[in-house]
Amino acid sequence: MSILCCILTEQRAHNVQYIEVNPYHKPESLLKLNPRGLVPTLQYANKPLYESTVICQFLEEAYPDHGTSLLPKDVYDRARMRIWIDWITSRYIPAYHRFLQHQPSSVEGGSDEGLEAARQAFLGLTKEFTKEMDNKGPYFHGAEPMMIDFMLAPWAVRLWVFDHYKGGLEVPEEGKGGEDEHVWQRWRTWVGAIEGRESVKKTLSEREHYLPIYKRYAEDKAQSEMAKATRKGQGVP
Amino acid sequence: MSILCCILTEQRAHNVQYIEVNPYHKPESLLKLNPRGLVPTLQYANKPLYESTVICQFLEEAYPDHGTSLLPKDVYDRARMRIWIDWITSRYIPAYHRFLQHQPSSVEGGSDEGLEAARQAFLGLTKEFTKEMDNKGPYFHGAEPMMIDFMLAPWAVRLWVFDHYKGGLEVPEEGKGGEDEHVWQRWRTWVGAIEGRESVKKTLSEREHYLPIYKRYAEDKAQSEMAKATRKGQGVP
Repeated sequence: MSILCCILTEQRAHNVQYIEVNPYHKPESLLKLNPRGLVPTLQYANKPLYESTVICQFLEEAYPDHGTSLLPKDVYDRARMRIWIDWITSRYIPAYHRFLQHQPSSVEGGSDEGLEAARQAFLGLTKEFTKEMDNKGPYFHGAEPMMIDFMLAPWAVRLWVFDHYKGGLEVPEEGKGGEDEHVWQRWRTWVGAIEGRESVKKTLSEREHYLPIYKRYAEDKAQSEMAKATRKGQGVP
Repeated sequence: MSILCCILTEQRAHNVQYIEVNPYHKPESLLKLNPRGLVPTLQYANKPLYESTVICQFLEEAYPDHGTSLLPKDVYDRARMRIWIDWITSRYIPAYHRFLQHQPSSVEGGSDEGLEAARQAFLGLTKEFTKEMDNKGPYFHGAEPMMIDFMLAPWAVRLWVFDHYKGGLEVPEEGKGGEDEHVWQRWRTWVGAIEGRESVKKTLSEREHYLPIYKRYAEDKAQSEMAKATRKGQGVP
């Protein structure tokens, strides 16, 4: 089994060949499997699978006895988790990119109104998601991390880019969340738990490697499919 | 169990209360369950579920012994079906709406270039989907209809609106598909099979009831969330 680019979960890393690709110079081996040229793409029994949510569910179903299940056992809880996994793709990631790629427009006369609106929209979604979390946690569904935690992790661990390029995300510091303090406290608990996991740390490079990549996004010059879709006002491609 | 608005599959219709709502005057009972106010919304054990793909998978998992399964048994085939179910939401439905809501722009000087592009884009996607179908059929995955067939059905059975409002969809008639004749033949086979099902027929009203509704879409005056998202260049809300 080969995975082109990234694997999201920690329990499935056996018998897997991991192949990194340059999304700006897509190799024939990727395009042959996935004409859309998007990563991650999984090669399983010489057949392709793509879309990260589909791949994660597939790994659950294909290896039911391998490690802890990343979906709740209860059918209602599973469905509810799928709603919020879908929400990450359809709402959260596009808002992350709208904020990151926002440029002051000439209409605004160089003011930061649009940037502030993009920041507040993204903060609002972060709060909306947090309110759906299990009260105690530390993870979304309770004491153990599940698929949804690993789906949000790649974005949550790179929120520092907003400090670097967009004047900060402005999640209130501890004790300064006003009437939403309990929500922000829950968010900080979740971020701390997910960031602390070995499996998540292993997916990360040094920040200096990310900086030139995110600079292109922050200046809205990136040419990835996601960046182009965001410029067109669209969602995740 | 209550479903607000529509139920998509034919085998789950027991013990269900079906409640139609007016999407332009959303009742409190809907908004209480689903703050997004979108249909379908399912009430199960007094808890809400929404997003039609989530609801369909939930019904599969909650009632595994009730009727035929609407997902393939093989884990790879299941995952592949999920990719194409996702494709219907992320590609096909937005393209359907871009074509339906297209208006001649003043930039085009009243020509139909943009309409033709929207038509060809939608036809191209119809072909792309058809090429993924099981060779023999008549359904997507073979002899029996599955979730993906019922997901596409609502759009496929309403393609006549393009004849009425947009000068036709222009799926080639039998024998006139040129080098793509085998693809269009396969599409016609699928449409015939799905349109012929009693369960699908029962979801339909007389065309005269649809006409004023679709007129608003065809003139790009509709105020549904889908219509508004399409105007903004976005996908399914």
